[in-house]
Amino acid sequence: MEVTLKENERIDDLELENLKIIQNNNGFCFGMDSVLLSDFAKEIKPESNVIDLGTGTGILPILLSSKTKNTKITGIEIQKEVAEMANRSIMLNNLQNRIKIVCENIKNLKTIYKPNTFDSVITNPPYKKSGTGGTNIEKVKLISRHEITATLEDFISVAQYLLKDKGSLYLVHRPERLADVIVELCKHKLEPKILKFVQPSSQKEPNLILLKAVKNAKPHLKLCKPLYIYNEDGKYTEELLKIYNKA
Amino acid sequence: MEVTLKENERIDDLELENLKIIQNNNGFCFGMDSVLLSDFAKEIKPESNVIDLGTGTGILPILLSSKTKNTKITGIEIQKEVAEMANRSIMLNNLQNRIKIVCENIKNLKTIYKPNTFDSVITNPPYKKSGTGGTNIEKVKLISRHEITATLEDFISVAQYLLKDKGSLYLVHRPERLADVIVELCKHKLEPKILKFVQPSSQKEPNLILLKAVKNAKPHLKLCKPLYIYNEDGKYTEELLKIYNKA
Repeated sequence: MEVTLKENERIDDLELENLKIIQNNNGFCFGMDSVLLSDFAKEIKPESNVIDLGTGTGILPILLSSKTKNTKITGIEIQKEVAEMANRSIMLNNLQNRIKIVCENIKNLKTIYKPNTFDSVITNPPYKKSGTGGTNIEKVKLISRHEITATLEDFISVAQYLLKDKGSLYLVHRPERLADVIVELCKHKLEPKILKFVQPSSQKEPNLILLKAVKNAKPHLKLCKPLYIYNEDGKYTEELLKIYNKA
Repeated sequence: MEVTLKENERIDDLELENLKIIQNNNGFCFGMDSVLLSDFAKEIKPESNVIDLGTGTGILPILLSSKTKNTKITGIEIQKEVAEMANRSIMLNNLQNRIKIVCENIKNLKTIYKPNTFDSVITNPPYKKSGTGGTNIEKVKLISRHEITATLEDFISVAQYLLKDKGSLYLVHRPERLADVIVELCKHKLEPKILKFVQPSSQKEPNLILLKAVKNAKPHLKLCKPLYIYNEDGKYTEELLKIYNKA
């Protein structure tokens, strides 16, 4: 399907089943974290009803649609212009039958959906606490990166509400927030079950965490072997290339 | 100093500054976790007042005495015969001026010590929940490995009581308990600050966690590069050999 680009927008090829995405040069552009999270969540069962909290460009639903079978994915995005751009990316990929973008604050979802509605929740929430780090950036990026319109607790509380019993939450976050994430998950009966660290290399400290939590599950956390991005020789690892479908 | 060995006891050379330890062939013998924890905690400042909760053979105070300067270390052990054996190890190493072994249930420490008494707490608590795993072993080992006489929450609650403001807790535990550990620490205002995973190799999942928490500190967790025990070629890593003073 043909779509119209607005000022400062570009189309990027995702190099995955010919999928494409529209991004704004002045907005928040998707990063490796979204690619890694969609791969981490690829175990989501066929026909599942999935929701992405804070979908931004729509990158997670688009990637996940190709990594899972016949899933229905709803992407929630608070910023009107970003949601509208995500919608055009869905049309560009002819994924209207799989993906729906809803422009809404995630904090309002409890009034829109019934509880226990989704099989899986996926989210790449803002990493930084409101008021921390550089906030001297455009508002669109600020909302994508900082907990301005919703906090970590909001994201987790909504996930708990939306998930069916034993439904799974997949999230990516920064290592320095690991304690916050675990405390909030446990507080909301989302039991951390699988934790995977991402390291630039085996000799560097982790810079991302991938976490799967299951609603009302028994406590037992499995730690995975970390994912290393680069080998000693500075080349991408086999594991990373596989995730990017290049191995 | 000469000490007397009882039936089934042996003296092991710690290969560290000529230190030795008495262990019972039928009891719980110290493992790599104690060596790694003492190394993880070696940043403890000179002259610090340190307490080891559940000291067993006294391995942690003995190792820590050589890795820190002029620290005073109290080791708490509930089992009378184990505490008595630890005491003989202290004498064997002429460390009576640095280390004191106290035979007590850690749950009673709040009646023995004033709050905010210690600069650092170190602990290698029982890893397994009471009633989980094989419990068909001798009682001495059972108490060392399972939460029979005190739970994880007891250990953390006592640590919180004993530590001075901004004092540090160093602990080693199993990865599958990471969520429990973090939740209990945060509940008791012991903020997780440094987390280090131990992996058999870079290609294996972690099997131990080393964690430093600071009483009443601000939230910000630093994840370290994992410690790998073996290289690809099956030999000990340089990093491990250094910890064992063999590099």
